[in-house]
Amino acid sequence: MVIECVPNISEGRRPEIVAAMADVIRAVDGVHLLDHSSDASHNRSVFTLAGDAAGVERAVLALFERAVADVDLQTHRGEHPRMGAVDVVPFVPIEGVTMAECVALARKVGAAVADRFKVPVYLYEEASSHPGRKNLEDIRRGEFEGLAAKMATEGWAPDFGPAAPHPSAGATAIGARMALIAYNINLATDRLDVAKKIAAAIRQSSGGYRFVKAMGIPLEARGIVQVSMNLTNYEKTPIFRVFETVKREAARYGVAVLESEIVGLVPSAALGAAAEFYLQIAGFKADQVLENKLRSSESEV
Amino acid sequence: MVIECVPNISEGRRPEIVAAMADVIRAVDGVHLLDHSSDASHNRSVFTLAGDAAGVERAVLALFERAVADVDLQTHRGEHPRMGAVDVVPFVPIEGVTMAECVALARKVGAAVADRFKVPVYLYEEASSHPGRKNLEDIRRGEFEGLAAKMATEGWAPDFGPAAPHPSAGATAIGARMALIAYNINLATDRLDVAKKIAAAIRQSSGGYRFVKAMGIPLEARGIVQVSMNLTNYEKTPIFRVFETVKREAARYGVAVLESEIVGLVPSAALGAAAEFYLQIAGFKADQVLENKLRSSESEV
Repeated sequence: MVIECVPNISEGRRPEIVAAMADVIRAVDGVHLLDHSSDASHNRSVFTLAGDAAGVERAVLALFERAVADVDLQTHRGEHPRMGAVDVVPFVPIEGVTMAECVALARKVGAAVADRFKVPVYLYEEASSHPGRKNLEDIRRGEFEGLAAKMATEGWAPDFGPAAPHPSAGATAIGARMALIAYNINLATDRLDVAKKIAAAIRQSSGGYRFVKAMGIPLEARGIVQVSMNLTNYEKTPIFRVFETVKREAARYGVAVLESEIVGLVPSAALGAAAEFYLQIAGFKADQVLENKLRSSESEV
Repeated sequence: MVIECVPNISEGRRPEIVAAMADVIRAVDGVHLLDHSSDASHNRSVFTLAGDAAGVERAVLALFERAVADVDLQTHRGEHPRMGAVDVVPFVPIEGVTMAECVALARKVGAAVADRFKVPVYLYEEASSHPGRKNLEDIRRGEFEGLAAKMATEGWAPDFGPAAPHPSAGATAIGARMALIAYNINLATDRLDVAKKIAAAIRQSSGGYRFVKAMGIPLEARGIVQVSMNLTNYEKTPIFRVFETVKREAARYGVAVLESEIVGLVPSAALGAAAEFYLQIAGFKADQVLENKLRSSESEV
């Protein structure tokens, strides 16, 4: 079982504090710290870890302990909206685990956080318990400074924990979501209007694919334009379908696709699905991938 | 590091003997038995295991110990050509390991086998030390029954071990090769001549791609034909290039590709290469695949 977890912490300016948090995660059994990065202007750090349910749970609780002790939102300043010392904790199913199991894990960890640290917890995305509390932006609106007032209004009692913010650590959104793929397609043109039109054609907000966020931007140093995207559910809106649609829309303007790029990590299954599509592979099973077979064999031991 | 190893054992009729061999492999640290299958008419079993260099070495030596004790080629009968109780042992680089390292492992295991079991060893494929002893078929020609005479002729002294066959266990070919992919493309026609012409166009033996073996066969129950292939080096002759060529050649006869199929295991990288090709992904690195990143992180611990 592989669950990815990407906690966002409201601390990006004190490297020694961030390094101590990374060390705390590394010391936990059953989980691996894959990456972490900090942004000083956002005053925020993002950790990427992966492991089984018990491992990521232990890591998140250990990280909470450090963050609640070391981060004080009363004095925190930064560009990125935030409401908690540990701001957001998404659990992401990668392999051998269902979304339902990640939702259950979000609830379990949320209850434990509230119990141990007296931090109120809102469940979000797939773990959300209220229709109006699915999107992170809605939960976080008003930020830490507006949190006490917001929590006192109807419909904003947290899913777990006290009915008021933790004095220094605020509140935390804990949830489950699909892996997000940062995917860009570069066009062999400098016509920004073409990139913007294509972005509008494929993104959900203007009538396109449900799990695509997109914008058209110039890559000025290269003299070309890019359709810059987030794919928020690669199973339901797969990479290959987005690619083929962008290519077709670009052709309508006489523009070719120069190349595409994946920024950061991508689940193996998202690439495998593209291979299956283009090669027209019938009846393929995930455990035919040698590495998957090997991993499932390891976990049986 | 992941090395695949696919020992072929000349025993496929006594299930209890094969099961005991499987148990011996399962008991070895650092290696996992992914699959094993036996064929009674061939009187032969194929084990698929994977692990690091030390793990697969231990497993192969443990398997030799059982096979030399339990298999007697003097009384062995079966359809498949064979020259040893342990007939063939290929090491296959899968991830985080080079072909050169697999060649070195083949030499090390070959020397150990000769030393411990007094079985002569021929190195083959990438590990071969003689130009005329690269192909398994050439080494095995004459089989067990002709082995003593063959070994006495010039150019057939083994790479390791005694100059004559082991009385009951014969000789063994140990080598290194790329992972082999069994890949078939089904055509939306019953015209066998089309499948045969396409197979001839793409296979090395008649002028096609270097690492393709192919034949055209009928799938009578479905009323269609198939181009049935082995891809013997998916890095140098990738799946997508073979697929596109077959599709183009079929179109020349007015025939469409119905579907393709992968039989058995395929390395993740072979599918990833197809995704990169069709999606025109630039600058992609293997450690952007989340599972690869996770595995490399695990091995650092």
